[in-house]
Amino acid sequence: MKLDLKLTKQILTTFVKEETEKIGLKSVVLGLSGGIDSALSAAIAVEALGRGRVFGVGLPYKLSSRESMADAELVADALGINLEIADITPFAEPFIESEKDMSKLRIGNVLARMRMVTIFDRSAKHGGIVLGTSNKTELLLGYGTWYGDLASAINPIGDLYKTQVWELSEYLGIPDKVIKKQPTADLWPDQTDEGELGFTYKDVDRLLYEMVDNRRRKPELLKMGFDEDFVQKISERIMRYQFKRKIPVIAKVSQRTIGRDFRYSRDWGY
Amino acid sequence: MKLDLKLTKQILTTFVKEETEKIGLKSVVLGLSGGIDSALSAAIAVEALGRGRVFGVGLPYKLSSRESMADAELVADALGINLEIADITPFAEPFIESEKDMSKLRIGNVLARMRMVTIFDRSAKHGGIVLGTSNKTELLLGYGTWYGDLASAINPIGDLYKTQVWELSEYLGIPDKVIKKQPTADLWPDQTDEGELGFTYKDVDRLLYEMVDNRRRKPELLKMGFDEDFVQKISERIMRYQFKRKIPVIAKVSQRTIGRDFRYSRDWGY
Repeated sequence: MKLDLKLTKQILTTFVKEETEKIGLKSVVLGLSGGIDSALSAAIAVEALGRGRVFGVGLPYKLSSRESMADAELVADALGINLEIADITPFAEPFIESEKDMSKLRIGNVLARMRMVTIFDRSAKHGGIVLGTSNKTELLLGYGTWYGDLASAINPIGDLYKTQVWELSEYLGIPDKVIKKQPTADLWPDQTDEGELGFTYKDVDRLLYEMVDNRRRKPELLKMGFDEDFVQKISERIMRYQFKRKIPVIAKVSQRTIGRDFRYSRDWGY
Repeated sequence: MKLDLKLTKQILTTFVKEETEKIGLKSVVLGLSGGIDSALSAAIAVEALGRGRVFGVGLPYKLSSRESMADAELVADALGINLEIADITPFAEPFIESEKDMSKLRIGNVLARMRMVTIFDRSAKHGGIVLGTSNKTELLLGYGTWYGDLASAINPIGDLYKTQVWELSEYLGIPDKVIKKQPTADLWPDQTDEGELGFTYKDVDRLLYEMVDNRRRKPELLKMGFDEDFVQKISERIMRYQFKRKIPVIAKVSQRTIGRDFRYSRDWGY
């Protein structure tokens, strides 16, 4: 799981540069939460395109911690990039108040999606491409809002586990305060990722790496010392949230269905 | 391109029933625009689950045509399903007013995405699955808002061209008024799909069917009498909007990357 940091930086930088140019754009737009994932995505984009072409958007809600936005500013200052603040309260609040007794989960999803709407709109304004900030751990665990924070155009860090995000962030000089803080979606006060998930990133990353990257099956994992319940729980979670990693399932009635037979094969071209 | 109507109805009905049950849910939620696509999706869901398990949501904006909502009611009445009205103005308007001089395109995308946020939130409220309403013509042409109306969990009509949607809708007894009206996204007054696209659904469906389903290349298409500029234009459009039919592109740095090597293979299971 140890990264070749220099090579990884080079691959991710080239990825952002090429994908952005391929669609004829020159800049990227991304939400800056004050957390490490968005900080790392932004740092990679700066290496790829230069600081003037990276637009960070801070998206506070009235209940967000003030520290989160302060950290977003810290990241923007450290990288020397633009930071716009787009308070989502004026439109998120009327939505939330239009329904009685919304659960925390529903509110969290509404906030994540309102942020998505804002980031995509800003990307249209600036003519930039929306950069994703979900890491491999979150994507595999389905720990994120479908069509919310999981939505983007290109994602430079989606193949990095959280522990690798930490490692690469140090290498790229992300401020120490941001690297050291407890990961949180900041959807409600005192929320922490690890508290909500019920395990640490360090533990789950070790397991995910063996399951997914090394394709190890249960007997092997048990022999390696992983707890059976933990293996079961994580495996089920990966399966349960598979839908968040796919496009909508289309009922097949033709010879060539989008997402199945029609995936834009290389022979396309007129 | 002629459908076996009885068989198609059976396939699509089974699809909705099985996909809904597979994830442990009993009902579906979908936006009812007053147009034919959402009417057909709703009709299929009624056949699959019964009318009590189909929740239609009407999502007017202050500038929407009143006729659209009247048609949504007509559809809901004809099918005997629930219709909730969720006016998006209270949250869409503050968003749109927070930015000066938003283009029509940006506003259209914001409205489509605000509707998505609402439908997904209602699906959480009702414990239903979000039913897609994009047809194959729209999906291939990229004529829709990414993470807006193109977002759903399952889509029963995504493999039907618009002309096939018309055909099947007649068979399923969708009200004539809805079948006969000019297709429109109703994002601004007097908008019509065919006016905006610059060609008719009938013409483009014939071409798409030959290009995509029958895999015919340019020389053959020209021999069949299709106009060269039209072929070129549609082919380019399919390529340009390919990104809307995919999950975010993830930079590959590991042996098993989400969306590439890790697509939830059949051998998964612990």
